[in-house]
Amino acid sequence: MTKRWTLLTQFSITTNTQTMKDMLGREDVLTLENAKELLFKSVHFKLLPEVEIEINNSLNKVLSRDIISPEDLPDFTRSTMDGFAVNSSDTFGATEGLPAYLNITGEVLMGKQPALEVKKGETAKIATGGMLPIGADAVVMLEHTNLVSEKLVEVLKPVSPGENTIQKGEDCKINEVVLNKGQRIRPQDIGVLAGIGITKIWTYEKPKVALITTGDEIVPASHPLMPGQVRDINSHTLSGLVEIHGGSAIEKGIFPDRYDVLHKAVEDSFKEADIVVITGGSSVGTKDITAKVINNIGKPGILFHGVSIKPGKPIIVGIVNEKPVFGLPGHPAAVIVCFEVFVKPVLRILSGETEKLHHRLKKTVKAKLSKNISSSAGREDYIRVFLEEKNGELWATPILGKSGLITTIVKADGTIVIPLRKTGLEQGTEVEMELF
Amino acid sequence: MTKRWTLLTQFSITTNTQTMKDMLGREDVLTLENAKELLFKSVHFKLLPEVEIEINNSLNKVLSRDIISPEDLPDFTRSTMDGFAVNSSDTFGATEGLPAYLNITGEVLMGKQPALEVKKGETAKIATGGMLPIGADAVVMLEHTNLVSEKLVEVLKPVSPGENTIQKGEDCKINEVVLNKGQRIRPQDIGVLAGIGITKIWTYEKPKVALITTGDEIVPASHPLMPGQVRDINSHTLSGLVEIHGGSAIEKGIFPDRYDVLHKAVEDSFKEADIVVITGGSSVGTKDITAKVINNIGKPGILFHGVSIKPGKPIIVGIVNEKPVFGLPGHPAAVIVCFEVFVKPVLRILSGETEKLHHRLKKTVKAKLSKNISSSAGREDYIRVFLEEKNGELWATPILGKSGLITTIVKADGTIVIPLRKTGLEQGTEVEMELF
Repeated sequence: MTKRWTLLTQFSITTNTQTMKDMLGREDVLTLENAKELLFKSVHFKLLPEVEIEINNSLNKVLSRDIISPEDLPDFTRSTMDGFAVNSSDTFGATEGLPAYLNITGEVLMGKQPALEVKKGETAKIATGGMLPIGADAVVMLEHTNLVSEKLVEVLKPVSPGENTIQKGEDCKINEVVLNKGQRIRPQDIGVLAGIGITKIWTYEKPKVALITTGDEIVPASHPLMPGQVRDINSHTLSGLVEIHGGSAIEKGIFPDRYDVLHKAVEDSFKEADIVVITGGSSVGTKDITAKVINNIGKPGILFHGVSIKPGKPIIVGIVNEKPVFGLPGHPAAVIVCFEVFVKPVLRILSGETEKLHHRLKKTVKAKLSKNISSSAGREDYIRVFLEEKNGELWATPILGKSGLITTIVKADGTIVIPLRKTGLEQGTEVEMELF
Repeated sequence: MTKRWTLLTQFSITTNTQTMKDMLGREDVLTLENAKELLFKSVHFKLLPEVEIEINNSLNKVLSRDIISPEDLPDFTRSTMDGFAVNSSDTFGATEGLPAYLNITGEVLMGKQPALEVKKGETAKIATGGMLPIGADAVVMLEHTNLVSEKLVEVLKPVSPGENTIQKGEDCKINEVVLNKGQRIRPQDIGVLAGIGITKIWTYEKPKVALITTGDEIVPASHPLMPGQVRDINSHTLSGLVEIHGGSAIEKGIFPDRYDVLHKAVEDSFKEADIVVITGGSSVGTKDITAKVINNIGKPGILFHGVSIKPGKPIIVGIVNEKPVFGLPGHPAAVIVCFEVFVKPVLRILSGETEKLHHRLKKTVKAKLSKNISSSAGREDYIRVFLEEKNGELWATPILGKSGLITTIVKADGTIVIPLRKTGLEQGTEVEMELF
């Protein structure tokens, strides 16, 4: 067992309280806005390895190359209705009182090139999806016709050229860029790839996120507990969050609060991972070890140390040899807030995903606050809330628990933020809640 | 190749246009509200098989049993600060001017049961997460102390009983229900399971969704195209949608528009799947085949046939031997809208997930409409839009393309709905857009 106190004592003896507060960043920390700006200008996408995959396994992956259509979609002009393929000029002026009469010369078989040609005064039966025969440029809907006999049809309404058809190449044209490099693949994107006959695509490998847990008191979830021990919660939560947001988690394990051990664990992690996340050690001694490791492993080291948010204030963020590293406080609620605010956007950048407007939009709902909440001016407070519906209105109820409790997050449906300059929110205020 | 026209012709000859419209449900269809009500009162969760899995593979799965904590979390009272474990009564009345003096008798090692006991007038050093020694009931923060010597500390502020600690069982108590049956597992839920030492859980197997594509003109994505043929787009899109919404897709393949073939395919699908989705065949002949198959395979058969939405109007929904079956029109945009409106909520019910308020909340944003859009009264119009930011405002631009085009959905960021009784929306109107 490490004596965290060795370090604690040094601080306590060599500094007075006020100075120590500053050294720990407890009084003089960055605002969230400044911290994010500093981080995001330091993080750039560097090429991840590419991998070719089947489109059926490509959901949520990021395209590493533009997709250029090898053909027109559709490859021929199709009918969008059941009816009659016509030369539109034959129908001009047709009405119920004065229909146009067309000779039926045959029908279009589905999935076949029509053998017939539609000449002036002629028509062919066609179903939705059928290929327009030569000579036809439009389709009259079945509902706008009357069959006089097997060979003759009355057209009751005119159609304009192209009406009730999808033109060759109307969905996409040969050599057109259909999907862009940097796009995260959705179900409809897989659909269009199938439509143009592309069944394999090049994607970026997922960014790898190494998860390091520190703490002499932490044991794996599967372990029996000895007095004074607690189980590792955070690496499991983080692993799920990394997976949801497009990364691949590497669980490095639990390490004691010792400089040499943590140094080696972080150094090893950088060899295989694109992002390193260290959790635990919000206490003086451990925080100091994490900070020292980050500064000693590579340049530039720590970007900032402490941000005016709650929970999550003691966060450490650094860049080591162009790779981001996060030292998160050990409290479960702080881990979730810090992930959301700092790690998730970095993970998105490193995944190669092109910034799109709608990625910045959060899943939020408006609700009314069911209780007063107080906050300190000078920090952004992330309050966990659960939602209820009363008389057709949504109400958000704050869950007031210590940030060290995982169950406060389990009971929550999301969070609301009390901004920097506010000292609280009154019951009944409309708040924007971000859903988990 | 089937002659869809055999059926088409029968209709055309034996009915006049007006009656046929009614038979096809083109004039007289259910409103969306009525259709949903009819469907949801007919669909009930029936027990899916259970499967025991590791918590590390449990993200997004649905719990099939309540989780009851086998122990207190934490299992002992812990410090949430670095400082001094004290008997709080020793600190009452302490100020900077008149501090309380306490004798330091030792320190608490992390992850160990403290060997010492804190008697009146005594204290022990403790770090965040450390176990409170016998006799101590609170922690004084390091910042509120001054070390006089290695053996003596000044306490500058009083603490109340329990202050700066997490009590034994405060996160959750032994035998408490921590997670409920029917809950879909999030990262923080995996965290709490790890925290109470549960590494394996019972979950429901995912509902199986059989996907059947019909159409004589449809070929697999990997096939070269002959004139008149198009590739299967919808089964790929649907497969992705099913996966996202917690189901397991079984791609049954592409079948020609023949009654006997489709009957066998649907019958086979019901043997292995919990939901059957048939796409293609929005045309008269095929629609008739799909309807006939659904009615002949089991009871009660078709619930409704045609709904006042666009795209998606010709949808067929049925229940066969207590399993839901959907006949979706073949247009890619219609497939996505019908999935969202009908299939997705049914998939959620059949997955065993307990209805929670926040599941009903959609991911929406408010934006201004950049163009006028017209619509017909008497139907709900699902308009595909893309988002732009201009001068700090969000603008939604309609993508006006035929519902048969997949690229309109690929270009879209989401949809807006024009309600039943509106005939359009004006440029500049604030709309609620649902993000894809």
